[in-house]
Order: sequence, then C-alpha cells, then structure tokens
Amino acid sequence: MRIDIITVLPELLKSPFEASILKRSIEKGLVEVHFHNLRDYTDKSYNQIDDYQFGGGAGMVMMIEPIDKCITELKSQRSYDEVIYMTPDGSTLNQRMANSLSLVENIIILCGHYKGVDQRVRDTLITKEISIGDYVLSGGELGAAVLCDAIIRLIPGVLNNETSALTDTFQDDLLAPPVYTRPAEYKGLKVPEVLLNGNFPKIEKWREDQAYERTKKLRPDLLDND
Amino acid sequence: MRIDIITVLPELLKSPFEASILKRSIEKGLVEVHFHNLRDYTDKSYNQIDDYQFGGGAGMVMMIEPIDKCITELKSQRSYDEVIYMTPDGSTLNQRMANSLSLVENIIILCGHYKGVDQRVRDTLITKEISIGDYVLSGGELGAAVLCDAIIRLIPGVLNNETSALTDTFQDDLLAPPVYTRPAEYKGLKVPEVLLNGNFPKIEKWREDQAYERTKKLRPDLLDND
Repeated sequence: MRIDIITVLPELLKSPFEASILKRSIEKGLVEVHFHNLRDYTDKSYNQIDDYQFGGGAGMVMMIEPIDKCITELKSQRSYDEVIYMTPDGSTLNQRMANSLSLVENIIILCGHYKGVDQRVRDTLITKEISIGDYVLSGGELGAAVLCDAIIRLIPGVLNNETSALTDTFQDDLLAPPVYTRPAEYKGLKVPEVLLNGNFPKIEKWREDQAYERTKKLRPDLLDND
Repeated sequence: MRIDIITVLPELLKSPFEASILKRSIEKGLVEVHFHNLRDYTDKSYNQIDDYQFGGGAGMVMMIEPIDKCITELKSQRSYDEVIYMTPDGSTLNQRMANSLSLVENIIILCGHYKGVDQRVRDTLITKEISIGDYVLSGGELGAAVLCDAIIRLIPGVLNNETSALTDTFQDDLLAPPVYTRPAEYKGLKVPEVLLNGNFPKIEKWREDQAYERTKKLRPDLLDND
C-alpha cells in the first residue's frame, strides 16, 4: 500500500511514523508513506496557501490551486483508489471503514487546516471525506495519522500475531473482555479465579459473557448493528 | 492547565506537541505537557512493563505495578481532576466532552498498548475512560494527542481569534457551512454569487441554511440532540 499525505505541517506528522508499528511496517516494506508539503505547490509569495473567506468571517480557507496542482501531479504518476479529505463533517471512521481501506492499493490523504478547504476542492477533487470523531482539531494531520494507524495495523504481516487484531474490540461488534496479567494479587486486588485455573472452555465462556455484559452496559448501540 | 501523559512510547508523541497550535500554547505558558516513560517505573529486568494475559490468548497486557507507581508519584505532587485512560471501549469523545475538559486544571492521561492494561488499573486508578472513536489503534498515544489537541485549542488565548473556535462544526450541533476563497473562478468553477455581493444579512442567512441542509443530509443524528 502507498499513502500520500498532503499537508501544510509535515513536521507535525514526523514522530508518529517513526515509532512503533508504523515505523516497522514502513521498514518491512509493507507500506510506503510520503508527505507532500502543500507550500511547495504554490506560486504565491511567502508560499501562501490560504486566504480570507468570501463573504467574511473568522478563519482562513485553503485555496484550491496548490491542492489541485499537488493532486494532479500525484495522479499523473499512478492511479489512486481514494482521495480522502480529513474533516470533522466527513463520514465518521469506524472499524469497518478501516478494514475496507486496509485492502486498497494507493490513497491520497489531504489534511485540512484553518477553517477548511475551498468547497470546490471537496466538490471536484475528493472522493471520500472522513472524520475521526465528533470533535474539532486544529488540523487534519492528527486525523491522518489516526487513519493511517487504524489501516496499517490491519495489513497482513504488520502485527506480529495476526490473531491479535482479530480479537480487538469492534471486530465482532463487541467490546473486548477485561484482561489481567501478573501478579495474581496486587495490594489485595485479585485476578478473577476463573482465569487462573486453566479450564479453557470455561475461560472462553467467561470472556464471551464479559464481552457481552460490557457491551450491553457501556455501548448498547453496538448490539443493534445489522 | 497541566497534562501528564504516561506512555511506553514518548518518542511517538514528540512532533505533534512541537508543531503548530500545541507548540504555541506551550510556549505561551497556557498549558504544560509532561511525558512520563512507564519503563522508568518498573523494577523488572529489561524495563518490562507488560506480561502474558492470565487465561491465555494473543497479546500482552500492561502490568498494574509500574502504572500504580507512576500515578501515585504524580498524585503526591498535586491533585488531579481526572485520571484518563485512552481505550477504544471508553466513552466516545465529542465536542461537549472536549469543552468541559478544557476547563479543568490538572489531568493525567494513560496511553494503553498491546491488549490493554490490567483491569485492576481501570477499576481502581482511572476516573474516566475515553475513546476517540469506534476503531482500534496500535496504542493510546495518538488518541492522547487527539484529546490534547481538541482540549488545548479551546483554552482562551490559544487560537488567535477566539470566535474561530465558536463557529466550528459541532459547537452548535450543526456542521459548518461550505467556505470559499480566492480566486472567485478557477477552471470554470465559480464561488456562489451570494458570497461575493457584500450583503451580509443575506450571507448570514445563506450560511445558516447551508449548515442546516448539510447537517440534515450528512448527519441527521446531530439534529436529534436534546
């Protein structure tokens, strides 16, 4: 998979891609991630990429021209499955969307900033608008990093133990059951007896019950899905 | 505001806090962010902080002891409004939660990893569990960065223009209206006439209508809120 991220703040994105799972997946050659600084695609003085909004109001708007130039150049080099715009009013990211995006070949991710991008970008250049949740961030960069992490960890070979991702919360519309590790007792707090006795069918049953109970209590909405 | 982040990957969190709005808010003294490497709080060899889960199964679990030590040390120095654990099965972050957290004084954020933390941590040390959305990430670090960004940009003085945050999507349960900037025409694509004529009451009305129409079309659920 190849991911091209268009941003005004490539430096913000540096460390998440240089640590942990994202770093290893890049080193293993399972994914290529390229950052494109939008300021390299403007003819304006001071590398200007935004301007006041028509009709007045607080906040700057990212101009169509540099974005169009950057996307056009990328598209001339290869074909893309999706050109994604990170925006709080996009479709809310969920595990199913991450699963399906983990199967594509090439994607472009455009990070919004300030008051957002000129609507004509969204109308003509973007194929998918994604929000990571119902809250506003100072830019699309963290959203892009979150989207990449959610997708990349699902690519076969990225996680050491593939079953690890399949038993995650959300993969079966249930929250994960509680987990415990050593010591079996800490300051009087004990691990549930059932987990210590090696009766695996009983453990499996306990975990299923816990997953269902937790979901019913904390996220009953997940049980209503399809 | 002071934010203490407990993590096994402090290096992952570096760049988001050294760029843009988070950087400026720290430089202005409006917020203090401290990273604590969990590996500094273990007595085990190889700085071990995780172990196999009781009852078997894929994925490691973060141990209670180093987390307890780190949180206890922090609490001995000041009092905290919340000890937050980032986890996909926590309460889903939304703008209201971000608004309310932007008003507190001191918070601790614990980043989960691997299969999560020992349940006894959640039962006894954590006061609030937060998810940034219904998807699984390789760790809580990006979630913590997202939470910090969502909160910190709301602190008065962080954004240059305070009205800018108040007109964001979600602050009034409506998506933001489309925005446009120069040029007024680009490759035949025109900015809506109403935004160019300087009739501000008409512009205001157009924006309200557009915000309502977009919300009705894309996120009707937001209109049902209280």
